[in-house]
Amino acid sequence: MNLDIYKNLHRANRELINLNPIQRGGILPTEAKKAIYEFWDGYSVCDFCSGKLDEIQNPPICKFKEDLAEFINMDFVRFTHGAREGKFIVMHSICEENDYIVLDKNAHYTSYVAAERAKLNVVEVGYEEEYPTYKINLEGYKEVLDNLEDENKNVGLVLLTHVDGNFGNLNDAKKVGKIAKKKGVPFLLNCAYTVGRMPVDGKEVKADFIVASGHKSMAASGPIGILGFSEEFEDKIAKRSEKFPIKEIEFLGCTSRGLPLITLMASFPYVVERVKRWDEELKKTRYLVEELEKLGFKQLGIKPKEHDLVKFETPILDEISKKDKRKGYFFYEELKKRGIVGIKPGVTKEVKMSVYGLEWEQVKYVVESIKEIILQSHHTL
Amino acid sequence: MNLDIYKNLHRANRELINLNPIQRGGILPTEAKKAIYEFWDGYSVCDFCSGKLDEIQNPPICKFKEDLAEFINMDFVRFTHGAREGKFIVMHSICEENDYIVLDKNAHYTSYVAAERAKLNVVEVGYEEEYPTYKINLEGYKEVLDNLEDENKNVGLVLLTHVDGNFGNLNDAKKVGKIAKKKGVPFLLNCAYTVGRMPVDGKEVKADFIVASGHKSMAASGPIGILGFSEEFEDKIAKRSEKFPIKEIEFLGCTSRGLPLITLMASFPYVVERVKRWDEELKKTRYLVEELEKLGFKQLGIKPKEHDLVKFETPILDEISKKDKRKGYFFYEELKKRGIVGIKPGVTKEVKMSVYGLEWEQVKYVVESIKEIILQSHHTL
Ligand SMILES: Cc1ncc(COP(=O)(O)O)c(C=O)c1O
Ligand SMILES: Cc1ncc(COP(=O)(O)O)c(C=O)c1O
Repeated sequence: MNLDIYKNLHRANRELINLNPIQRGGILPTEAKKAIYEFWDGYSVCDFCSGKLDEIQNPPICKFKEDLAEFINMDFVRFTHGAREGKFIVMHSICEENDYIVLDKNAHYTSYVAAERAKLNVVEVGYEEEYPTYKINLEGYKEVLDNLEDENKNVGLVLLTHVDGNFGNLNDAKKVGKIAKKKGVPFLLNCAYTVGRMPVDGKEVKADFIVASGHKSMAASGPIGILGFSEEFEDKIAKRSEKFPIKEIEFLGCTSRGLPLITLMASFPYVVERVKRWDEELKKTRYLVEELEKLGFKQLGIKPKEHDLVKFETPILDEISKKDKRKGYFFYEELKKRGIVGIKPGVTKEVKMSVYGLEWEQVKYVVESIKEIILQSHHTL
Repeated sequence: MNLDIYKNLHRANRELINLNPIQRGGILPTEAKKAIYEFWDGYSVCDFCSGKLDEIQNPPICKFKEDLAEFINMDFVRFTHGAREGKFIVMHSICEENDYIVLDKNAHYTSYVAAERAKLNVVEVGYEEEYPTYKINLEGYKEVLDNLEDENKNVGLVLLTHVDGNFGNLNDAKKVGKIAKKKGVPFLLNCAYTVGRMPVDGKEVKADFIVASGHKSMAASGPIGILGFSEEFEDKIAKRSEKFPIKEIEFLGCTSRGLPLITLMASFPYVVERVKRWDEELKKTRYLVEELEKLGFKQLGIKPKEHDLVKFETPILDEISKKDKRKGYFFYEELKKRGIVGIKPGVTKEVKMSVYGLEWEQVKYVVESIKEIILQSHHTL
């Protein structure tokens, strides 16, 4: 066993501009880094525990749970290890084996895998339009639910991805919330890409459950998430153990016993503020789209952008790659030279990126860098 | 919403000697702290992911998985969020609803709650002797299994707590492993308190599954654990998603996507070394017991100690508390004055403690401090 490989673990990309959409919302503010020094040891959040992690007063985890519920406007909140674990908890506690769940065709893979783990059947709601917007046909939820009803299938849950991880399309959650309500089916909104970036109001959209991701969109270290739920489902979600009545079954007593929770908490004031500046983030995103489309990129997904995750079709990169001796890797390598990472190496037909949270000057630097790479390549070839 | 309470989060006990057994094995070495600086942002471990977290090569997570398997001598290892999540994964993937599991009466509450979540029935194996050793009757597993067989019950799993969290009793796992093997029932050994502190050899004790806890006993930030399993159960534990064949269902694709895993990895060389010095740790523990028994404490659990967690009956503290105006809190407060924490405030009949990982001088300081508190109190009263 060569133990030297575990010494001096280093993140090569740490100081660079990272355009990977999954990385942009999880960058820690200084406050959270300071808190890490305090709580990095094992079970250190448990110093003053009297039996249930989320009722600890010092650090103020108990109050935090309430403030988070207010932040997303849901009755209750619990901590989870991430959005996916929250989805599984909902499915496992409110559905019966072999129930059906209805979800959008842009749903994240973890929604499918959580359903598989909970032994549920999945039915998809498709697109209103495929290429180029891949817009989900939200009214389609009604039809799918009607059909399942006609077939006497038991539908346990309606799930909508608030913003998906492929096209960054924002869905009008209230539409689906209303349909679900009318049908009497519980409604889960997956806010992994929204809570912590943009304002989300659970009651307004008629969500029974909201899952969010700390490491993805709430400036926290991974893995941490939150699950918001309405009072109606408290007895199922927060069901207590018979033998250990203080412990909630679905959370195995206590979920996030450690550091990620501390960072989520320390970052919270920063997150509350940044959500208010969402409009400014959209301006950056739209500027990026406008400038890159001038270079021959084509934005996929709904226009204009209502989220920072952008997927582009990039025939121009594909064309260059055919003539560059580095093949598809030229784009990655040229960006890297300029201190920019987070674009998949070797991929040239489509690229995903986000400039969320970058300073305007950095956004402009990104645009100028891409412009330079493309013009230079055209010139050289 | 008063956001000021989340500013400058501080751990009051950070610099003090902490005798709480759940805290002693999770203290980070410097190497792990350095790694935290590198990887504190969100999904930062995922920079070079090609679809499955535990196959990432940079940082060397994939190799780490193999080295951990070698370390505990099991065929395979996966990362979990902790010991309890590992237990749930085993129960959920290999048992059928309403199956029976057999476990020891000293089992951790999370073993019961995991079984409840997996909708299983629990049958306990009792004590060979109650007070004062609370030694589990390991041969009793045979009888319990025979009885369940006679009643035509389906037994899905045998679980043994390697060292329990109440008395710190070490169980001879091989005995139970052999009984389980003979009966053809899979055997899970809960090593939350052993792997990372003392040598554990999964095959030697005939374990099909081993769960361990990073934040508890492997010098890692919480929450992180490992699940070791034998090849025989690979198809069930590591079952892949139908729609997303790279993703393992029970792990929801990827489990520990973040910082705790990094600390587990960075601490690994240190943990491998410290396990070799387990004998020295036992000497410290036995010295503690010897000295405190001179003061009127009485060690509960099996003698001599084979683990650092010690539970004492403390009639002497109870006696003092009746005359001290601070009541039961005098012990906590006097220790605190001396820079020692981790004893439950107000409790005087029984106390739990561990000096695991302290320097000999610190161990002696702890003993001298307790001696001083008791003699002084006796004198004053
Ligand atoms: C839409 C969506 N949902 C869920 C997830 C998973 O989040 P978590 O890691 O918190 O489970 C992601 C992550 O990429 C996502 O994009
Ligand atoms: C014997 C035992 N098992 C399991 C656990 C739970 O460990 P984890 O937090 O990793 O789930 C503990 C924690 O106190 C324990 O003492």
